[in-house]
Amino acid sequence: MARNSIGKNLTITSFGESHGAAVGVVVDGYPANIEIDMEALQLCMQRRRPGQSEITTSRNESDVVEIISGVFEAKTLGSPITMIIRNNDAKSKDYDDLKNIYRPGHADLLYDVKYGHRDHRGGGRSSARITAGWVAAGALAIQYLEKRGIKITGWVNQIYNIVAPKLEITPNRIEIENSMVRCWDEQTSSEMIVAIEMAKSENDSLGGVIQCHIEGMPKGIGEPVFGKLQAILGLYLLNINAVKGISFGDGFEAAGMKGSAHNDEWHSDNDGVGTRTNHSGGIIGGMSTGEVIKIQVAFKPTSTIGKEQNTVNHLEENVTIAATGRHDPCVLPRAVPIVEAMCALALMDLIMENP
Amino acid sequence: MARNSIGKNLTITSFGESHGAAVGVVVDGYPANIEIDMEALQLCMQRRRPGQSEITTSRNESDVVEIISGVFEAKTLGSPITMIIRNNDAKSKDYDDLKNIYRPGHADLLYDVKYGHRDHRGGGRSSARITAGWVAAGALAIQYLEKRGIKITGWVNQIYNIVAPKLEITPNRIEIENSMVRCWDEQTSSEMIVAIEMAKSENDSLGGVIQCHIEGMPKGIGEPVFGKLQAILGLYLLNINAVKGISFGDGFEAAGMKGSAHNDEWHSDNDGVGTRTNHSGGIIGGMSTGEVIKIQVAFKPTSTIGKEQNTVNHLEENVTIAATGRHDPCVLPRAVPIVEAMCALALMDLIMENP
Amino acid sequence: MARNSIGKNLTITSFGESHGAAVGVVVDGYPANIEIDMEALQLCMQRRRPGQSEITTSRNESDVVEIISGVFEAKTLGSPITMIIRNNDAKSKDYDDLKNIYRPGHADLLYDVKYGHRDHRGGGRSSARITAGWVAAGALAIQYLEKRGIKITGWVNQIYNIVAPKLEITPNRIEIENSMVRCWDEQTSSEMIVAIEMAKSENDSLGGVIQCHIEGMPKGIGEPVFGKLQAILGLYLLNINAVKGISFGDGFEAAGMKGSAHNDEWHSDNDGVGTRTNHSGGIIGGMSTGEVIKIQVAFKPTSTIGKEQNTVNHLEENVTIAATGRHDPCVLPRAVPIVEAMCALALMDLIMENP
Amino acid sequence: MARNSIGKNLTITSFGESHGAAVGVVVDGYPANIEIDMEALQLCMQRRRPGQSEITTSRNESDVVEIISGVFEAKTLGSPITMIIRNNDAKSKDYDDLKNIYRPGHADLLYDVKYGHRDHRGGGRSSARITAGWVAAGALAIQYLEKRGIKITGWVNQIYNIVAPKLEITPNRIEIENSMVRCWDEQTSSEMIVAIEMAKSENDSLGGVIQCHIEGMPKGIGEPVFGKLQAILGLYLLNINAVKGISFGDGFEAAGMKGSAHNDEWHSDNDGVGTRTNHSGGIIGGMSTGEVIKIQVAFKPTSTIGKEQNTVNHLEENVTIAATGRHDPCVLPRAVPIVEAMCALALMDLIMENP
Repeated sequence: MARNSIGKNLTITSFGESHGAAVGVVVDGYPANIEIDMEALQLCMQRRRPGQSEITTSRNESDVVEIISGVFEAKTLGSPITMIIRNNDAKSKDYDDLKNIYRPGHADLLYDVKYGHRDHRGGGRSSARITAGWVAAGALAIQYLEKRGIKITGWVNQIYNIVAPKLEITPNRIEIENSMVRCWDEQTSSEMIVAIEMAKSENDSLGGVIQCHIEGMPKGIGEPVFGKLQAILGLYLLNINAVKGISFGDGFEAAGMKGSAHNDEWHSDNDGVGTRTNHSGGIIGGMSTGEVIKIQVAFKPTSTIGKEQNTVNHLEENVTIAATGRHDPCVLPRAVPIVEAMCALALMDLIMENP
Repeated sequence: MARNSIGKNLTITSFGESHGAAVGVVVDGYPANIEIDMEALQLCMQRRRPGQSEITTSRNESDVVEIISGVFEAKTLGSPITMIIRNNDAKSKDYDDLKNIYRPGHADLLYDVKYGHRDHRGGGRSSARITAGWVAAGALAIQYLEKRGIKITGWVNQIYNIVAPKLEITPNRIEIENSMVRCWDEQTSSEMIVAIEMAKSENDSLGGVIQCHIEGMPKGIGEPVFGKLQAILGLYLLNINAVKGISFGDGFEAAGMKGSAHNDEWHSDNDGVGTRTNHSGGIIGGMSTGEVIKIQVAFKPTSTIGKEQNTVNHLEENVTIAATGRHDPCVLPRAVPIVEAMCALALMDLIMENP
Repeated sequence: MARNSIGKNLTITSFGESHGAAVGVVVDGYPANIEIDMEALQLCMQRRRPGQSEITTSRNESDVVEIISGVFEAKTLGSPITMIIRNNDAKSKDYDDLKNIYRPGHADLLYDVKYGHRDHRGGGRSSARITAGWVAAGALAIQYLEKRGIKITGWVNQIYNIVAPKLEITPNRIEIENSMVRCWDEQTSSEMIVAIEMAKSENDSLGGVIQCHIEGMPKGIGEPVFGKLQAILGLYLLNINAVKGISFGDGFEAAGMKGSAHNDEWHSDNDGVGTRTNHSGGIIGGMSTGEVIKIQVAFKPTSTIGKEQNTVNHLEENVTIAATGRHDPCVLPRAVPIVEAMCALALMDLIMENP
Repeated sequence: MARNSIGKNLTITSFGESHGAAVGVVVDGYPANIEIDMEALQLCMQRRRPGQSEITTSRNESDVVEIISGVFEAKTLGSPITMIIRNNDAKSKDYDDLKNIYRPGHADLLYDVKYGHRDHRGGGRSSARITAGWVAAGALAIQYLEKRGIKITGWVNQIYNIVAPKLEITPNRIEIENSMVRCWDEQTSSEMIVAIEMAKSENDSLGGVIQCHIEGMPKGIGEPVFGKLQAILGLYLLNINAVKGISFGDGFEAAGMKGSAHNDEWHSDNDGVGTRTNHSGGIIGGMSTGEVIKIQVAFKPTSTIGKEQNTVNHLEENVTIAATGRHDPCVLPRAVPIVEAMCALALMDLIMENP
């Protein structure tokens, strides 16, 4: 049913299949008369695009965004902004084997059960390729937020059993981007790269955790009851392919704490009212506290792997599979801009209600 | 803004303040001509109601649900079902001190920032008392799901640093309900009770984790892209007061795994197609796999505590507070029916799209 | 299904059956910290309530609104405002005959087809009594609009074949309210009253037309494409029981005109830019022009009449019916505040998007 | 704000400007595994496209629909169907004069007031060209309805002061399409064509009325209260450019009737239960009665005319204008497929709730 749109004030509608003509997005509700920074938008796309380094899939897409509505003379019209990203390097033949064999951990089988008809090429609609449209939309939201002094920084904090050192501050964007795996810490980066290469050579894949900080939030964003900031962020982030968990501030560790330790005491000084600790991750009662919002997002390992596994085919026969096609041994590095985009879209949607 | 409704096909609208006349809910979209089991509904209320044991708040509410529309001759009409729960044991004077002093970890201050006017009595709209309406609505959804063979079982798996033994199967509802803290394991229950009593005596509070299993799901519930089963469940669950994290299946542990270990291999036998392992927690590609759905929900410790803490008042002066009023030292036991209710409402909303 | 809520930014949820415990409404999205004028609200209720004059139904309801949430110390909290109107003078026995016989022109039969279970007493959910909740919600919207200088004036322009004289200006509210049929023209009023009394004595009923002017609109309210001002007004107004047509400005007469005659020429003077004619009824391209919005709403005659008619019963047998129960021979006079309320709710919803 | 989507179960999102790269639509919620009849779809486009006869605008667009997502091997996937119609014959230079002069009766001025930035070329987003996407979406809905035996027939019933003879039955589609003005009656057609040619030669334009019949409806479609069949149809139809009124069944004439004359008596015979008259136009209490749904839609005359008129420019100076560019002297003939498309989309959205 109709569940390909998200957002109340800024509504994005996602469309497209991995090996169809294009993937894309319609952004409805974006304010008028705003100059679009196309270079910044395209940079977001670059950070997500396949083929950006040796540790990602070898599918090579330029992912140039074509805007076909909503922008005139480089400024927004207030009408829907439609952005299309063509699928150029689709090698659909690689997927012929997958037409009738269902990959373990993948949605192939469920698509057939649910819809009775499926585009098996490159995962079709279930491919993470469709997040290209989300990143394009998110890039517009990021520009909107930056003008309000809000900055979103995501990085890879864990891949497999390799975890970056604990960090209280927000790491530097340049250091993150200097790393092929988008981890701010050089030593951890190196270890992560080794782990990914190892997994690749084993025809296997790895999971991980992305952390995201949002700085510059005013107080009171988010709506109590059914529009809680963490719930709206959760709705967007849990819709990202392969995400299996999300937490805020101390997250699951908060479960093991006492109130006196977890509560962030309010404090007033010349800078106004704030808190010195931030166990809550910048959200209380569903609203932003004005402190940094801290988010952790857990990704399962890529389900499509070259290693042989047991599974069934469309005749419900037990068979084995060793997937071909081009896949990321670890999606985390490319997922950072996706996490940032989804945060930006969620925030912009809520901020538009607090003018 | 208008964010007090949730659900597309089954829409519930929450209303009420903790010490106002009543809290309640409107349930819109519930099918017609269904007999309502009022006893079962009231039992759900009993499990959430305050004053049910010595380790919960001493506020004593019978929480009898009054249905004022949508039901005629004990059967639903297809029109909105409005349920009201009166606030009888509100002791608003206990909160006079909180009119001008903001509790750490609580939304008081943010309500004043956002709305400029606040019902300070008993937490007003931010009180967990408003979940009484959600549980009443959820009770109707549970009845709907049970007729389709879907069963939801929640329990307290962790309080503070006390964690129940790992469990592959779904624990027995009777054993859970026999425990004052709603943990199926007797030994763990005893330890949890001691911990809560200790925290209470220290004027402190404790966090914890609720686990929830959903059995009997058909394949293919949930909508790929922006209606993913985990995202819709997340939206409902992250709107529960004090929740700071949510995960599915192996959750954050999946981040540390390889694909070959995490993937649940499809297998076909006389019972049809299924998986033997369930790392994914019954959800792949945003759709149910037909296996048990496994959810973990992390709660922070109750923010209102009797212990003295630093904070600010409405004049932005630094002051101290030691909260009076009646509060749960640990909300987990009473939150089990809330988690179950929110799961039921999310599932029913999605199932109604797959008739 | 869930279609008892309306509005995106200001969402009202209607509930209740005519002879159930109560009818009511939840208003979500109303701004916080606004003082509610309860007297003005109750005055709107008075204008709609049954039993207000000899030409309306003899059902006698005080229609006192009880606010059970969302207002504290007479000011709004920003949380949902729930308003309940008790059903006190329900004489359900009058409707025993209608349990199994379907009134012509009435929804009885269709409710049974669609839902398989029906509250036959007083029309149940299909009764115009449920508009009491809408009028209460509309009263809040009217207060919001009046603070912005927007004034809504409705009146009865036609009953049966009696039509008020053509009028370019907006008639005076006091003159309208002085008339038992809510027509500004004394002579027409008298004729209308005679016609209603005649219909009543014949056990028959009459239709009519309500006109409504909205003054003080700023330019640019309404959203091009699918949020056109006329479409949103239409959505609200066509949901009023018995409405069979709606038009704006010259309406159906515009169909018989040439562009050169219908176009309202823009003109600039010291008061700014406006138009001297107003054929468009204050709406162009889906947006307000700043001129008076002019609306016509056509009502069919009340379907429940005492006159004998042919119909069928629940066994699909051909029978005759002469309805008992208490009914308005003409709903128009009582429908004026309903039309105004729906206009106010539609406008407020759109204006909240243009802060 | 975000108001370019319409529909709850079948959601269409409109995008595009008249002289931008393309106009188009995303159709979300369309069932999977359905074969699309592209020929039938393109035929709907033909009936709407400009340049189809001498009495329409001379802009010549082939309006070939390009499907870029949601269809694989000619069958729907259950994912969003994106359809694009390129703008090939845009002559933007014709509109240079309109950049700074506001046409009377047109939205130019209001777009500038509301958005501060406008695509003046060909009316931009306010152009009726964007209905090309709606017609493409509607064509899919028509195919869905036809499989359920539901047939929609629209025709031009009035142009200027020329009205077709009254008709109880539904006219024949072939006769309608044989007429250049889409009126089933040959004599009336000829007169209408003469009137249009006359208006064209005078640099003027004409309004009119389209009637639409929907045959084959089951009983009970439409949701009482805020999803009334007439209100949802009204929402879709009142969003069509230039529509100033809509009515159902006897419409505004019902206002002048008595209940005993307007009520359609239920009657039972071998064909089941139905009515012999159809004053209500097939809708009672917001639900379909199973009889033919009858709709009238009033269009104002095209606002852009070559005749000289007074108006203002962007400096708020009083000036005159005689519009150039290519425009329909009367939009009615081309609006028939638009009315049908909007009816189909509204109906399909409601029918999907009654599976």
